Amino acid sequence: MFIPRKILEERLVQLLTDDIGQGDITTATLIPADLRVEAMVITKEDGVAAGIMEVTILGESLGLSAKPLVADGDEVKKGRVLITFSGDARTILSFERTALNLVSRMSGIATATRRLSKKLEKAHLNTRIAATRKTAPGLLYFDKKAVSLGGGDPHRFHLDDMILIKDNHLTLSKNIETAVKQTKQKASFSKKIEVEVTSVADALKAAKAGADIVMLDNFSPKKIRETIEALKKLGLSEKILTEASGGITEQNLEKYAQTQVNIISLGELTHSTKALDISMEIKPKK
Amino acid sequence: MFIPRKILEERLVQLLTDDIGQGDITTATLIPADLRVEAMVITKEDGVAAGIMEVTILGESLGLSAKPLVADGDEVKKGRVLITFSGDARTILSFERTALNLVSRMSGIATATRRLSKKLEKAHLNTRIAATRKTAPGLLYFDKKAVSLGGGDPHRFHLDDMILIKDNHLTLSKNIETAVKQTKQKASFSKKIEVEVTSVADALKAAKAGADIVMLDNFSPKKIRETIEALKKLGLSEKILTEASGGITEQNLEKYAQTQVNIISLGELTHSTKALDISMEIKPKK
Amino acid sequence: MFIPRKILEERLVQLLTDDIGQGDITTATLIPADLRVEAMVITKEDGVAAGIMEVTILGESLGLSAKPLVADGDEVKKGRVLITFSGDARTILSFERTALNLVSRMSGIATATRRLSKKLEKAHLNTRIAATRKTAPGLLYFDKKAVSLGGGDPHRFHLDDMILIKDNHLTLSKNIETAVKQTKQKASFSKKIEVEVTSVADALKAAKAGADIVMLDNFSPKKIRETIEALKKLGLSEKILTEASGGITEQNLEKYAQTQVNIISLGELTHSTKALDISMEIKPKK
Amino acid sequence: MFIPRKILEERLVQLLTDDIGQGDITTATLIPADLRVEAMVITKEDGVAAGIMEVTILGESLGLSAKPLVADGDEVKKGRVLITFSGDARTILSFERTALNLVSRMSGIATATRRLSKKLEKAHLNTRIAATRKTAPGLLYFDKKAVSLGGGDPHRFHLDDMILIKDNHLTLSKNIETAVKQTKQKASFSKKIEVEVTSVADALKAAKAGADIVMLDNFSPKKIRETIEALKKLGLSEKILTEASGGITEQNLEKYAQTQVNIISLGELTHSTKALDISMEIKPKK
Amino acid sequence: MFIPRKILEERLVQLLTDDIGQGDITTATLIPADLRVEAMVITKEDGVAAGIMEVTILGESLGLSAKPLVADGDEVKKGRVLITFSGDARTILSFERTALNLVSRMSGIATATRRLSKKLEKAHLNTRIAATRKTAPGLLYFDKKAVSLGGGDPHRFHLDDMILIKDNHLTLSKNIETAVKQTKQKASFSKKIEVEVTSVADALKAAKAGADIVMLDNFSPKKIRETIEALKKLGLSEKILTEASGGITEQNLEKYAQTQVNIISLGELTHSTKALDISMEIKPKK
Amino acid sequence: MFIPRKILEERLVQLLTDDIGQGDITTATLIPADLRVEAMVITKEDGVAAGIMEVTILGESLGLSAKPLVADGDEVKKGRVLITFSGDARTILSFERTALNLVSRMSGIATATRRLSKKLEKAHLNTRIAATRKTAPGLLYFDKKAVSLGGGDPHRFHLDDMILIKDNHLTLSKNIETAVKQTKQKASFSKKIEVEVTSVADALKAAKAGADIVMLDNFSPKKIRETIEALKKLGLSEKILTEASGGITEQNLEKYAQTQVNIISLGELTHSTKALDISMEIKPKK
Repeated sequence: MFIPRKILEERLVQLLTDDIGQGDITTATLIPADLRVEAMVITKEDGVAAGIMEVTILGESLGLSAKPLVADGDEVKKGRVLITFSGDARTILSFERTALNLVSRMSGIATATRRLSKKLEKAHLNTRIAATRKTAPGLLYFDKKAVSLGGGDPHRFHLDDMILIKDNHLTLSKNIETAVKQTKQKASFSKKIEVEVTSVADALKAAKAGADIVMLDNFSPKKIRETIEALKKLGLSEKILTEASGGITEQNLEKYAQTQVNIISLGELTHSTKALDISMEIKPKK
Repeated sequence: MFIPRKILEERLVQLLTDDIGQGDITTATLIPADLRVEAMVITKEDGVAAGIMEVTILGESLGLSAKPLVADGDEVKKGRVLITFSGDARTILSFERTALNLVSRMSGIATATRRLSKKLEKAHLNTRIAATRKTAPGLLYFDKKAVSLGGGDPHRFHLDDMILIKDNHLTLSKNIETAVKQTKQKASFSKKIEVEVTSVADALKAAKAGADIVMLDNFSPKKIRETIEALKKLGLSEKILTEASGGITEQNLEKYAQTQVNIISLGELTHSTKALDISMEIKPKK
Repeated sequence: MFIPRKILEERLVQLLTDDIGQGDITTATLIPADLRVEAMVITKEDGVAAGIMEVTILGESLGLSAKPLVADGDEVKKGRVLITFSGDARTILSFERTALNLVSRMSGIATATRRLSKKLEKAHLNTRIAATRKTAPGLLYFDKKAVSLGGGDPHRFHLDDMILIKDNHLTLSKNIETAVKQTKQKASFSKKIEVEVTSVADALKAAKAGADIVMLDNFSPKKIRETIEALKKLGLSEKILTEASGGITEQNLEKYAQTQVNIISLGELTHSTKALDISMEIKPKK
Repeated sequence: MFIPRKILEERLVQLLTDDIGQGDITTATLIPADLRVEAMVITKEDGVAAGIMEVTILGESLGLSAKPLVADGDEVKKGRVLITFSGDARTILSFERTALNLVSRMSGIATATRRLSKKLEKAHLNTRIAATRKTAPGLLYFDKKAVSLGGGDPHRFHLDDMILIKDNHLTLSKNIETAVKQTKQKASFSKKIEVEVTSVADALKAAKAGADIVMLDNFSPKKIRETIEALKKLGLSEKILTEASGGITEQNLEKYAQTQVNIISLGELTHSTKALDISMEIKPKK
Repeated sequence: MFIPRKILEERLVQLLTDDIGQGDITTATLIPADLRVEAMVITKEDGVAAGIMEVTILGESLGLSAKPLVADGDEVKKGRVLITFSGDARTILSFERTALNLVSRMSGIATATRRLSKKLEKAHLNTRIAATRKTAPGLLYFDKKAVSLGGGDPHRFHLDDMILIKDNHLTLSKNIETAVKQTKQKASFSKKIEVEVTSVADALKAAKAGADIVMLDNFSPKKIRETIEALKKLGLSEKILTEASGGITEQNLEKYAQTQVNIISLGELTHSTKALDISMEIKPKK
Repeated sequence: MFIPRKILEERLVQLLTDDIGQGDITTATLIPADLRVEAMVITKEDGVAAGIMEVTILGESLGLSAKPLVADGDEVKKGRVLITFSGDARTILSFERTALNLVSRMSGIATATRRLSKKLEKAHLNTRIAATRKTAPGLLYFDKKAVSLGGGDPHRFHLDDMILIKDNHLTLSKNIETAVKQTKQKASFSKKIEVEVTSVADALKAAKAGADIVMLDNFSPKKIRETIEALKKLGLSEKILTEASGGITEQNLEKYAQTQVNIISLGELTHSTKALDISMEIKPKK
């Protein structure tokens, strides 16, 4: 997910424009035009920093000088200064909230992803935590990037970068085999094919038909194990990845991962994000 | 917050465009171009519906027929069908995720706001729950509207519709009295003036200087009471509103409201939203 | 009305893009690519400078060097050089008209506003001159800012930053009292409430119901005095502001202001602006 | 200036979006969602209607039903209803100001243009009134169209549709002959070439070098006559058009036109427009 | 590549807006506002129709009635009417060139793709013709779709939907094995990995390291055969796809396909498109 | 066609954004964030360079350092380095394809235009090669500019900068004389009038009615000569330009030009462009 800075800058300035309206009337009234200040962005909770690059770019595009003190993906302790900005006081005061909203959301997502990933790592489990498309509307890029920074897999971005045959597609298709074969024949060779299944039998059908990944929807750990066993027996386990989704929480995560399922995807990371508590302190520049 | 439908339509189509990329390759491969289907949007949790108008507009702008079965702001039980869409299968499948992301987020915000508002109502407390500007970046309109539908106050939208003198402004000002007087003199008569304070003394200074609202930042219930008492003694309690912010949770909410503070604002409603679990079921149209 | 420069830059470049079309064919044909010139922006009339910041930002964003010789809001005499640009000749020639259109319009608005404000000031009257939403379509920001620079009040920006109950709203409401009470109850605490009235009686009703401001529509000075007297008797004159609008001209302005009405708003400032005559002189750079 | 309706619609909705902000809070608070009303747009002054097509398109794009009662370019008397809208009350109230701002400005421009054109017509003079590029920034299309509706010539639109060698270009060129010859050789055959001159001699040089039009900048009527005479003597008067610009007012217009100059262009029409007084009356739909 | 019509409409209207400028002055001058006409879009060459859906959507969005007489992907003979439009004459005349430019380019791409695909089909060869990212700038969607309609594979859309390690990436990497392994470990499981190689040995290294596809850059048919043989011997030929690119022309295409390479990608299809000759005939509506 | 760099930059970044999607995943995975490289853009064919300025601006706007080694319009030999970029490796790899697509297309257009122009020059013929509006959709600016760099005439840009009465306009008009007279009377004096004709007689009618240019559609060289002769006899040949269009190829070009027709316009230059083969080589920066 490397985007040239200029393109990212335009998205970020757009987010700021949305927030400003016709101008910051408090700042215009109170703060002199030539005042130079320093601002520290400080985390008030432990977590994983994310969005540092984004607020750096936003600040610099506004003419501020930015000095990141941590890197995106770093684990940070309560009280840590993440980045400082210096420059025009009015500009800093006007972009404070947009910057904090972005860095708090992204860090919140990265923190949760890291916590889950580490849990699996400590238990010596190879399962990968992944995002879904259940992001905040319009924030796909930022939400996915935060999952990556937390150590998760961003999964597909759009409807254009992977075939994912879901329950609603299957309802409208003849059957799983036909659906998978049809996509294998018609879709671009450049895309992987994933199928969402609700039974072990369907998982096997999808695998035999040539799917690259099966998404085991709301499978219990036991049912996941059965599926993986069955795939092994058929000699398909090397050819296909398994993804578990639905009903998985921080509490039962390990049980699911112990099945050796390849991927666990969690909508909660992005649709029910808990923002990291981050604030800004400003003081006049000596 | 009434916006002509056409303007809202453009924002919504933009959110969809962001999600689609170069096109839905699964749907293009599997679903025939002339298939007509029906889709039900169903809540899987109890909550307050929000975003129904938004997804109606989005669906209709795509040529779908939409039939809302609940109104925005309605309390809905698990299993309730919120809205149905009928029309072109490919279109419905392509907009499913964007529609659900929007309605889940907005309903999640409305649900939490309603729960807190009702808690106060039941305890016969008049304090109003309010939003902050701590929204998801770029989603200010939708987040604020969801708070309103839940029964909360949207608070200011932008930096342009209210003077709000915060800690960082005061750091750069001489003192509270001067700051308030300066804004009263220079700012437009059409705007209210609010000041964030950290002590009872400062609250009184702000009130005397003519602020319309004081935001009591991280005040304990006890300290809030003291402030309100002191304002009454000075005969200012009719002229000024009090807003409590910081450290307030669902658990201690009543204690804060019992102080008779006018407004309690909560960033969590929008920065740490828990989405309502809502999904879509599609079937061929008979 | 402080907007970070980057956001303003994008609006200004958009205005220029509108004017350029597919390129300046005169300049491309006649002027060599590497010619450096100096340009002076000169006022041909006395007035108040406005838009200096805007054309500075526009020029600099195009790679020109800009040297403002007056500040926005300064009173300037005929013949005064307001700002000089130096740099690429083709760029200066291509942006000349857009820059002059902007600075002439804004200075025209500021000049008229200042003339009226000074008239009141000299007569020791405290009434404030205010803008309306009757701006050139799409130029709200620039028109309001020019009024501010002239010493006027920008009034509300949008339909979102103040409740303003106008004649057409009242036609559709039960009565004034109900309308005001309804908005007081439903609208955000962060917004002021203004009501347009056509009789003294209605002004009093609005005031009693809790409006923050009454707009006295097409009231004679006599009728305004009556209203203010009546408000005083009711002890409401401290709680409410009065705004006169309609039928007020440069000639009768003082008569209106002598009533001690708080605000006089004038659509003419922005809907029938007389541009200040400002031109650009270019010479080769030595 | 025919633009497909859909494109015009997007520009108009953009102007409205600019004005709305986050929504009309007055209307949202006071006016029920299902109220249907009728609105009459009424002129309070005699003039020429313009912008009727634009507000029709804007209204219809918002879902309103629009019924134009006059055509663009019609002369209308005080009290005349120009167009009626019927439909959703909230929508009509929210777009009232943008619609009126547009139709008032365009009608103001058309009215002034018509007045001047008629003056010449009555005096049996063939000179044509023309616009300049001195429009309100960003409103070029609407300002030029209003001039056309008033009976004037829109002149060039952009920097791309005509070669116009102005004073500042000449300052940077060797001399007029070389400049004209250079453009004749290098510029596209599809474009006309006009040259701004400040003396009779220069006018003749430009004509001899092959210019299609000479702009006589700040020429007295006497000097214009001399130029035209000289062109006749040289047998060039059939090949070239003459345009007078600068120092021309409503008072001296006829004197200028009596010189038989082909075009008189006036910046005032668009940079110092006097809006036509037009308002909207709304009543509930029976 | 299914995109909801509304989104496609916005892209198409943008292309038209680019072409129109400030309006069609010929049409405005000559054609009455209420004239209804019929227009036939006719191919003057044999070929494959593409862009029919796009011009249908564009025409309908402008208020025209469109009647497609062939489907996208149909083979059409010289003289065939592809689609008719009826409606407002000015609108049809204004969008004629944009519509023809689009349908001619897309049909030209589809025609060439079909010709090559059929050649292989007739020779009973299974190799697939594919596009590259060498499209006209900004027209990726339309160019790729045209290739699909011609029977080709669109290949990846963006830089985000597939890992494609090209020569320049390898220059900056340690070696092929490390590069492939690094991407397999770090990239999302949802994406395929392709590697561009310049020797048989490198193709084998890439395959062993786990690439999904190898792009054989400028390989002779002989060298392609060697590669495929070697992959078979290593038992990797089922696990990996082979793509030939570079030096392939219509003349030698079969020789390349006879190697049984899976995909042949050709930049010429989109970077050096020969437009299909298509024109529009308009007549008054009886 | 001079456009201020900032405006061009925005168009170019838009083209890049279209191509990038959610980010370059190959580069993000393989290339370290701090790697600095040098890239050479090399032509693999002889031709005329065009687009050098455009890719310079695009590269610099992304923070790269660009060093053009040839000027736009220069004739270049196979193997020539056109421009080098140095800077961040990820940025260069991400913009490589967009930059090459642009420079290859523009250079391809310029090369073909130059070849044809030179052919005429060598034969001492004064006829000018011109573009049409048959460009790639949305790329009008770049296609026209490339024709200019090749030595051709860009012809009109839009529908707004010239009256061009085509076959379809005439079908809907009474006759040629009336059509030309109507436009002469109604259209702005600032625009030229061209008429497309299909017979010598019509050419003469158009000329007599006052057209500035006649487009001789699908005339044979013989018919063109006849037309020019007839115009001479009528003494109109000095007043009108002749443009030949249709059926003209590289082979028969001279025959057409020998008729002394003023302009030959060719759609093929832009609708069936053959891209110049240009590639990029990257190496680590020492």
